[in-house]
Amino acid sequence: MSQTTSPTARLMDGSALARRLGAETAERAAALTARTGQAPCLATVLVGEDPASVTYVRMKRNRCAKAGIQSRHVALPADTGTAQLVDTIGGLSADPGVHGILLQHPVGPHVDERAAFEAIAPEKDVDGVTAHSFAAMSLGMPGFASCTPGGIMRLLDHYDVELSGKHAVVVGRSAILGKPAGMLLLARNATVTYCHSRTTDLAAHVREADVLIAAVGRARFLHGDQLKPGAVVVDAGYNVGNVGDVDFASAAAVASLITPVPGGVGPMTIATLLAQTVDAATRLSGAAG
Amino acid sequence: MSQTTSPTARLMDGSALARRLGAETAERAAALTARTGQAPCLATVLVGEDPASVTYVRMKRNRCAKAGIQSRHVALPADTGTAQLVDTIGGLSADPGVHGILLQHPVGPHVDERAAFEAIAPEKDVDGVTAHSFAAMSLGMPGFASCTPGGIMRLLDHYDVELSGKHAVVVGRSAILGKPAGMLLLARNATVTYCHSRTTDLAAHVREADVLIAAVGRARFLHGDQLKPGAVVVDAGYNVGNVGDVDFASAAAVASLITPVPGGVGPMTIATLLAQTVDAATRLSGAAG
Repeated sequence: MSQTTSPTARLMDGSALARRLGAETAERAAALTARTGQAPCLATVLVGEDPASVTYVRMKRNRCAKAGIQSRHVALPADTGTAQLVDTIGGLSADPGVHGILLQHPVGPHVDERAAFEAIAPEKDVDGVTAHSFAAMSLGMPGFASCTPGGIMRLLDHYDVELSGKHAVVVGRSAILGKPAGMLLLARNATVTYCHSRTTDLAAHVREADVLIAAVGRARFLHGDQLKPGAVVVDAGYNVGNVGDVDFASAAAVASLITPVPGGVGPMTIATLLAQTVDAATRLSGAAG
Repeated sequence: MSQTTSPTARLMDGSALARRLGAETAERAAALTARTGQAPCLATVLVGEDPASVTYVRMKRNRCAKAGIQSRHVALPADTGTAQLVDTIGGLSADPGVHGILLQHPVGPHVDERAAFEAIAPEKDVDGVTAHSFAAMSLGMPGFASCTPGGIMRLLDHYDVELSGKHAVVVGRSAILGKPAGMLLLARNATVTYCHSRTTDLAAHVREADVLIAAVGRARFLHGDQLKPGAVVVDAGYNVGNVGDVDFASAAAVASLITPVPGGVGPMTIATLLAQTVDAATRLSGAAG
């Protein structure tokens, strides 16, 4: 994981960019609060007490506090069913004091996660998990980006990565990461290939990538010897042991740009969540953006 | 275009399969009408008098009549604006006598086509053009398929084309054809590449396709010498002179399966529209499917 093992790749420093975006977001939150008398408010919903989920939610709420965004936490017991979860989220969707809603996932196998997501009002879907947000990302309509893909796009833009006409290979096809990441890249005129667990000869596809998005959820699944020299490598994985989906040391020796784990995509995900919460509050308050 | 020029490819006969699906649809329509006392009803909306659009709508209404599906036609003047069109479609969405809504496109450059599409209630979106339908196709939720991609999937299934693990290359990325086609193929575990006008070295991508979906809208844009031998070729193009996006003669000499134009994807598009209209009427009437 040491960044000194890379003889070629430049780091895409998500921590630094997230700090910058966070500072902007805090300024916008303060200005909005001054104008409207109400701070932006993110509701966080957690089902059960999975330690990783508890940590994620705490981290997001801490970041909110630092940015001048209120957060309201709803902790539900692990055995909460779909109907009750949908009800709770529906209440937050209707509550004028709430501007953004985050349902921490996973919600457990007994819950229909899609139904729960769909209870989030599109204008409060600052985590970009609803069908509406997915279609908006895909079809160029107004709407929120899923936070991880949205954060990735901000990172690529910050490092002036040319996307038009480039071949972007997305490994992974989840509804909130792989699929929307591909759609956002397609909207920016990349040629986009989706690979996944059923892909035959993954290595052949990865080797063609000018831009590689690793969104698999398997530690060090992809290696430098599989990459096209000079590829831009975005590692959206975060696995046990704080390691990504890409073997950093070998990949950094081949790539031109690469995100570290931690300190790459992760901070951008949270920064995007906060920025979108202020966007939502701005629109919902009717205040000028 | 002659089908006798193919020494190798088997034809995917969309006309024959559409007749079969049409007969099933007519039976279901008759049974539903008998049960509920109301025939399924498709509303068709046409803005202006573009000759091709007039012909398409007439053809669709004729097919409806043959299948025992009522149709109600709304002809609007060419200068109809977005607000009026949205209003008209909203009225049809609220009308309990209408089960499906088809807005014939293009609607003219002065109209916000997306706003018009979004006025279609999701449960009546039998043409599969709304954001909701796109997300449903993409995320595996209940909903209608866009008719052309939906028809393509029926055709591929009928000819037992294995999709899992295969590399499907979609050339074109429109909201109602290329994009949803790719999402449906991805849902069936194909590795999917989206190519388009900005793709660099299109030929290299086409050559990798086990399954090629041509959705470009340029006559004979793709040729047999670009194909992987044995590829399955689906030509969703329909250009002036009744020719597809693929040069049939040269492609049929290399492909293992190919759709003719006409008589391939086109008939399946209309057959899917009718089948989905009966699906919608069945659900809206509360009758057992």
